[in-house]
Amino acid sequence: MKKLGQQTIQFDNSPQIISSASIVGKKEFEGPLGEYFDQVLKDAYHQQKSWELAQVKMTEDVLAKALEKVSLAQNEIDYLLAGDLLNQIVASNFAARNFPAAFLGLYGACSTMIEALAMAGLMVDGGAANNILAFTSSHYQATERQFRTPNEYGDKYPSYKQRTVTGGGTMIVSNQTGGVKLTEATFGKIVDLGIANPQDMGGAMAPAAADTILQHLEDTGRSPNYYDLIITGDLGKVGKSLTIELLAEQGCQVQDNYDDCGVLIYNSSQKVGAGGSGCGCSAVVTASYLLPQIMHNNYDKILVLGTGALLNPTISLQGETIPSIAHAVALESTGHLTSGIGREDIRQSLATSIEDLSGVE
Amino acid sequence: MKKLGQQTIQFDNSPQIISSASIVGKKEFEGPLGEYFDQVLKDAYHQQKSWELAQVKMTEDVLAKALEKVSLAQNEIDYLLAGDLLNQIVASNFAARNFPAAFLGLYGACSTMIEALAMAGLMVDGGAANNILAFTSSHYQATERQFRTPNEYGDKYPSYKQRTVTGGGTMIVSNQTGGVKLTEATFGKIVDLGIANPQDMGGAMAPAAADTILQHLEDTGRSPNYYDLIITGDLGKVGKSLTIELLAEQGCQVQDNYDDCGVLIYNSSQKVGAGGSGCGCSAVVTASYLLPQIMHNNYDKILVLGTGALLNPTISLQGETIPSIAHAVALESTGHLTSGIGREDIRQSLATSIEDLSGVE
Repeated sequence: MKKLGQQTIQFDNSPQIISSASIVGKKEFEGPLGEYFDQVLKDAYHQQKSWELAQVKMTEDVLAKALEKVSLAQNEIDYLLAGDLLNQIVASNFAARNFPAAFLGLYGACSTMIEALAMAGLMVDGGAANNILAFTSSHYQATERQFRTPNEYGDKYPSYKQRTVTGGGTMIVSNQTGGVKLTEATFGKIVDLGIANPQDMGGAMAPAAADTILQHLEDTGRSPNYYDLIITGDLGKVGKSLTIELLAEQGCQVQDNYDDCGVLIYNSSQKVGAGGSGCGCSAVVTASYLLPQIMHNNYDKILVLGTGALLNPTISLQGETIPSIAHAVALESTGHLTSGIGREDIRQSLATSIEDLSGVE
Repeated sequence: MKKLGQQTIQFDNSPQIISSASIVGKKEFEGPLGEYFDQVLKDAYHQQKSWELAQVKMTEDVLAKALEKVSLAQNEIDYLLAGDLLNQIVASNFAARNFPAAFLGLYGACSTMIEALAMAGLMVDGGAANNILAFTSSHYQATERQFRTPNEYGDKYPSYKQRTVTGGGTMIVSNQTGGVKLTEATFGKIVDLGIANPQDMGGAMAPAAADTILQHLEDTGRSPNYYDLIITGDLGKVGKSLTIELLAEQGCQVQDNYDDCGVLIYNSSQKVGAGGSGCGCSAVVTASYLLPQIMHNNYDKILVLGTGALLNPTISLQGETIPSIAHAVALESTGHLTSGIGREDIRQSLATSIEDLSGVE
């Protein structure tokens, strides 16, 4: 690997994502990407006695699925890199209790999936590991009661508020071939432009997303159209518009090849305000929708950003603002079609056609 | 770097800790290591309006101090690697808001300092960065009210309970020379032997500590006496005894060259139960006591373990147990005396003598 510019690391040895899997809630399954996900919950408890434990079980399920797809045993995984939205990242910790591999805990709020992918790329590229499981998850009910309103009070969706995705996603980063290549990682700075409303996550995160996109392009000397797609994690429609605006102010035009996972995951009739948010949002969209598209050369090169609002309820009640962060990884097709990425049936159908998606408008 | 055994990474390019700094509360200053720390708080608020913001300010202070010691400017730092005990690691995030470097958030509870050091070593060793600031912090009052009892209820110390250290520590990992060498990192597995009492952190963490020590020795093919000192982060006297016992059961004898930062940081007259805990504990002891000892060849090789209890109050109230983790880094003298490590006056006095320390008995 080498240091590229200020915040970017370029990989030399082509670490690859060789498998990916996802699990989602009913609402996400009913959205435009529903058919892409590997597994759907019957209800929010997922056969557990609490929402927190449901999130743990979702994580266990998705790890097993990603391994099964490429016939890897647990003991062939060197490291687990993960974090989630529950305090002390317990969904990840608890899922890792029964897994015979070292665990590195990360916290980047909803940027965690991409932070984990980037770190995994770095470790595999450097020769520190052969196979790494990177994963994250979020759960609507467990998140709401921790961050915002007791669930029994119900929930309202002003146009700028987003809904936390119930979803778990995982990817195996490996020195094996046959998957999707990680070419660069750009880690983001903490950006805080003073937004203090814990319901306006998209607005809080957009400046961080714009900052990391611009930094990545500067560090790599690329123009935005180098990528077939630049996609952010969970800005929703408010944050997406703001990001386009902030980039345009800096002379960077991205309308045609820019989208957001939080916009894609629901449709307008689902009453979810500005779209999806939560660690699981970019994780399941990347694992089950974006990666298969790359596998089938619908995209050749994409830049995926995880976007995190580092909201802390205690300090928020003290009147403080919400610092945000965005990390990016550049993904590239290797021209191969055989791998554990996405769903087998989806990969088959993608070989001939690609769906038209609507998303939140 | 190369993969060594199951969970260890050996560094090729000698990443070094070239500067370290610490800040502590009054209680820690009054302990046996008091004179080693760079800065002491006048009171728990540290001129801020809340304990959480005091912890942010402590972090800012200690980052500035570590840079000042080696005359590095903020823009010479490539990455910040950090986490802390506050939910959403806000002490670290908020301190990083005004820092012009990318931020990678980590969560390993009280193992965070060593997780950060290990990751920093990996990034510098791989050529991804020149200089990295690794840091963490904890604050007694802010931690207690988040994890356990409202502070107004007061606090009792049964013999097995530990006191959260008010302290912030930072280290600069660099490809420059003249400091203390990072030779290997061993990342730990999540270990959960079923302890569910949130006051018995030492007991919960000891099995993880023993597991990582044994794994490190197996991966490197070393015996425990390869190290002048093996030291855990914050097991306190209960966890320390248990670790010795667990290791002995596996035929690994460590009595003579094993200690614990949580035991060293307070003395028995301070009424702190079993000793110190919290992210800040291993951070300030390593930054300001251990590293200067290595610089002056009082120790040549030490193995430092960060030990984390991944306690989540919500899931704990649901009757769940406390998974734990321990990460290790091996540190080695380079024979150099010039650096920003520890306090200048301490380094001077260490050149001729070494203190006899009592600690919690």
